Order: sequence, then structure tokens, then C-alpha cells
Amino acid sequence: MQTQLDCIPCFIRQSLDAVRQISDDETVIKRALRRVLKEASEFDMELSPPEMGQIIHRIIREESGHPDPYREIKMRSTDCALELSEEALEQIEQSDNPFAVAVRFAIAGNIMDYALLSMWSKNKIDESFTDAAEHAIDMQMVSKLAIELAKAKTVLVLADNAGEAVFDRIMIQQFPGNAEVIYAVKALPIINDATMQEAKESGLEEVATIIDNGTDAPGTLLHKCSESFKAVYEKADVVIAKGQANFETLNQADRNIYYLTQIKCPVIAERYGYQVGDWIVTNTEALAEREANR
Amino acid sequence: MQTQLDCIPCFIRQSLDAVRQISDDETVIKRALRRVLKEASEFDMELSPPEMGQIIHRIIREESGHPDPYREIKMRSTDCALELSEEALEQIEQSDNPFAVAVRFAIAGNIMDYALLSMWSKNKIDESFTDAAEHAIDMQMVSKLAIELAKAKTVLVLADNAGEAVFDRIMIQQFPGNAEVIYAVKALPIINDATMQEAKESGLEEVATIIDNGTDAPGTLLHKCSESFKAVYEKADVVIAKGQANFETLNQADRNIYYLTQIKCPVIAERYGYQVGDWIVTNTEALAEREANR
Repeated sequence: MQTQLDCIPCFIRQSLDAVRQISDDETVIKRALRRVLKEASEFDMELSPPEMGQIIHRIIREESGHPDPYREIKMRSTDCALELSEEALEQIEQSDNPFAVAVRFAIAGNIMDYALLSMWSKNKIDESFTDAAEHAIDMQMVSKLAIELAKAKTVLVLADNAGEAVFDRIMIQQFPGNAEVIYAVKALPIINDATMQEAKESGLEEVATIIDNGTDAPGTLLHKCSESFKAVYEKADVVIAKGQANFETLNQADRNIYYLTQIKCPVIAERYGYQVGDWIVTNTEALAEREANR
Repeated sequence: MQTQLDCIPCFIRQSLDAVRQISDDETVIKRALRRVLKEASEFDMELSPPEMGQIIHRIIREESGHPDPYREIKMRSTDCALELSEEALEQIEQSDNPFAVAVRFAIAGNIMDYALLSMWSKNKIDESFTDAAEHAIDMQMVSKLAIELAKAKTVLVLADNAGEAVFDRIMIQQFPGNAEVIYAVKALPIINDATMQEAKESGLEEVATIIDNGTDAPGTLLHKCSESFKAVYEKADVVIAKGQANFETLNQADRNIYYLTQIKCPVIAERYGYQVGDWIVTNTEALAEREANR
């Protein structure tokens, strides 16, 4: 997705919120904000918003002097998710359709989203999880995904945030069939996205081969990903993209992808006729059709 | 008031909203927004937010090619205010304390504030005026102002927005005493602030000598005002500053000033222990005391 005019004030707001999460030094915050403003003034709006996210968080890392400024937040997210996962596992096991319930929790986990720092709170998380068993999702699309998974030899899951990764692991355990699962994380820290470290802390090694995509960008900027990642991406029978940044960067992918995310942005919601807060299970084909029918 | 970090995202949001009010040409909007971002990246935060407002709206005027892009909006505001003023006049005449009711309407009129474009709507205006007769204001301060006005030989009223000016005229008609009243507007168009033209359209000539302050900045940036304006400002027995931009630029004035405004900004509210939405009648001395006691 191209960056829209409304993304610009949102970038600036998010940058301020993000840098404040990791520093209370006014000089650091001011310097980071000035650099973000300068970069935003020159930003190529043909690019997708996560490209700006990459720039913003490089600035924040440099100005704060932390190579992984959200590490502590990521650890807390993982702990919180591990705690919540016991209740989730029970609900999944007792269900008639464990895979569908696991998908719901994998979307519920998407609330742990520090890219939208202002909205993040323990209350929001609790709300998301209390809601998980009943939140409306497209069950036809869940069945379609289940059928494709059952037939697949390889499945690539594109990770999103720390914390959320715990629920990805639980969802992968419920995948129908016997496909080899590859879980792709970021090569370097970017916001609270899962890297190798957080994937391991979330138990992904038990259920998947963990690889990284070669970048420190939110979402999946294919033109910046490593060749080895791209080879996996192209060959996988099924690709599942978690979270909004993957949605934004792969919504018009040249292969079919399944997207599991919560909708957090009014610009995206407007484009596809969703509401902010919707839980989405869809794929590239369905998305193109949806847009054409708007 | 110095600019705070939280003002920065608000500047960008306001700029986008403001330029969209006068242009739907994406190229114009984008170019204006880029220039605002660049200026914001270099903005001296020791300065008050209206200094940035001045920069933003110079950019918008240049990029849109309109020397007075909000002229139509100002005319609509004046028409709307003239319509509302009949009901206001009735309420004032029937009141036991016509001056206090006129002060309330002069604050109610402050809602016509295109600097906060996102919030402006007919509903908001109706709400503000329905509320006018009963909205809590500091009645002790109103009495204090009335006493000073009764004794004064010259009174300077610093204008704010078009539309609001109609209610300033009505308030001036209710001033106790026989002071000469001077009504100071902006020398050149800036957002929807009243200039000579809108002051005349609002009937100010009937009740005051209209002068301009020599600037195209929101509020009153004394260091940028004309010498002739400053002479009037210094010599006036009473100065009344209308609206939030005058409040922001004169809150620490070296002479006593009465402020009549609605509080629209969380940063200002926080500093003085107000709530966004409060209607304020206060003066420089009371304000300093209020801040010291926080």
C-alpha cells in the first residue's frame, strides 16, 4: 500500500509516543523527532508506510543509543502472552474446531502492537483475549486455509510482534496436515517485532524452522529481503502473513497469501471497507475482489 | 508559552486539516505538508506555538496561491454569528447582569476557531451557544473586569476569529463606563482571524476604533507587532485578549491582561490545571498565582 496523506501526522504522533517509551530525556526525544520530521518531509509517498517505520525506528535506535530499545517491552509481552496462553490452550482443546479457535487467538495476540504505542495497554490486551472465542471472523476463509494447509508440504508464517509469537506457535500446533513449517522473523530489532531471540523465547523452535527475512523493516519489504528468504517465500505452498505491517506491505503480492490481522488503521479500513477493530482472515485473491467491488 | 513536544504532531495534523479546507489538489496538499514538516524539523521550540502557526499558514497561502484562503469561511462565520446574535441580544437584555451574559457570549463565540479545524462544525457552534447562558465562568473575575472597565479611559480588545468578532461587538456595547475602546485585528489574513474587513463586517466600527497589530501571526507576538500597536497596548488602561492564541502568546505578559477564551488544547489545560472545554475569564496576575500553586 502506498502512503496516504493521513499517514503523515500519524507517523509523527507514533514517533513521539515510541521514543517516549524508551527515553525521558527531552534532548533525545527532541532530536529524534526533528530527524523524523526532516525524513517525513522528503519521504517518497509511493512507498508503503512500513518503509517510513523503518526510517523512524532507525532514528530512534541511533538517538537513544539502544540497538534494541524495545527489548524489555518485548520480554514483558512474551511473559504476558505465555501467561494468557494456558487459558487459550484449554479453550482450544475443548473446542470442536481447535484450528479455528487457535486462529482466533493468533489474531487476538496481534493486539500486542507497539507500533501503535498509544493504544497499547493491559486493558486492551485483556479485552482482546476475553473476546477471542467469540470475535467475528470469516469462517469460510478459515476453512479454506485449513484445506490448503492440509495439502501443503511447506508453510511459511511471517511473524509480527513479540508476545503474538506465542499464539503463532499455538496456532502452528493446530495446523492440519504434516507440512514443514518455517517461521520468518526480522533479522534485526525493529519496534517490538519478533526477532530470532523472541521467537525462541516463545517456543517456536518446537514447531517450526525459524529463519529471518534479512531486514529491520516492519512488515515484509520484499525488495529489501535476503535472497534466501525470498526463495523460501516463493516456494512455500502456503504463506500466512501476521499483522498489519505484513498486510500493508504484501496486500498486492504476486502470489496468494493468507493474512491474519486486526485492523488498526482508518486508512486501511477505508480502502477495503473494514472497520478499525475488525479481525481479518483473508487472502490476496479475496482482497483484490473486495477492493474491486467497493 | 513555549512549544511543547506534544504540539508538534498537532501542528502537522492541523496543517493537513487546514490545507484540505481550501484545496482538494493532492499536489498542493502534499507540497504544503512537506514544507511544514521541514519547517517543523527546524522550529525553535523556545518560541510559542502561534509562531509555528504563522509559518504554517504562510506556507498554505503560498502553496494554494490564495492570499486569503479562509475568506469564504470567515464570511460564513460572520453570517452565522450575526444570525445567532439576535437570540444572544435578547438574553443579554433580559438579564440582571447584561455585561456578564455578554462576556459569556463573547467566549461562546470563540468556538468559531478554524485553527482547530478538525473540531469545527455547526453542531459544535450550536452546542457552544445553547450553553452560553449557563456555562460556568469565574464570576468574581467578571466583576473585577467590570470594575476596571468602569474606571478605564482606554480599553484595548485583542480580536481573535471572524464570527467571534460579532460577539465582541455586543460585549463592548455592554462595557460599564465610558472608556474609548480600541479593537485590534490582524494586519494580514492568517487562518480565520479577523482582519479590518471582518471587523467592519461585524459592526465593530460602531463601538470601537479598529486598528491592526502589524502582523499576520495568530495571537499577539509583541516582538513582531508594529510600534503604533505597541504604544496603544502599553498605554491602554485595560487590555482584553480574546481566544487561545492570544492566551498562548500573552500568558506571561509584563502588564496585566484579561483573557477570555475557551480552552482547546491539552498542553495549556495541563499547565494551568484547566480542562479542555473550560471557559476562562482570568488575568495575568491570577494566572501566575494559579501556576505557582500547581
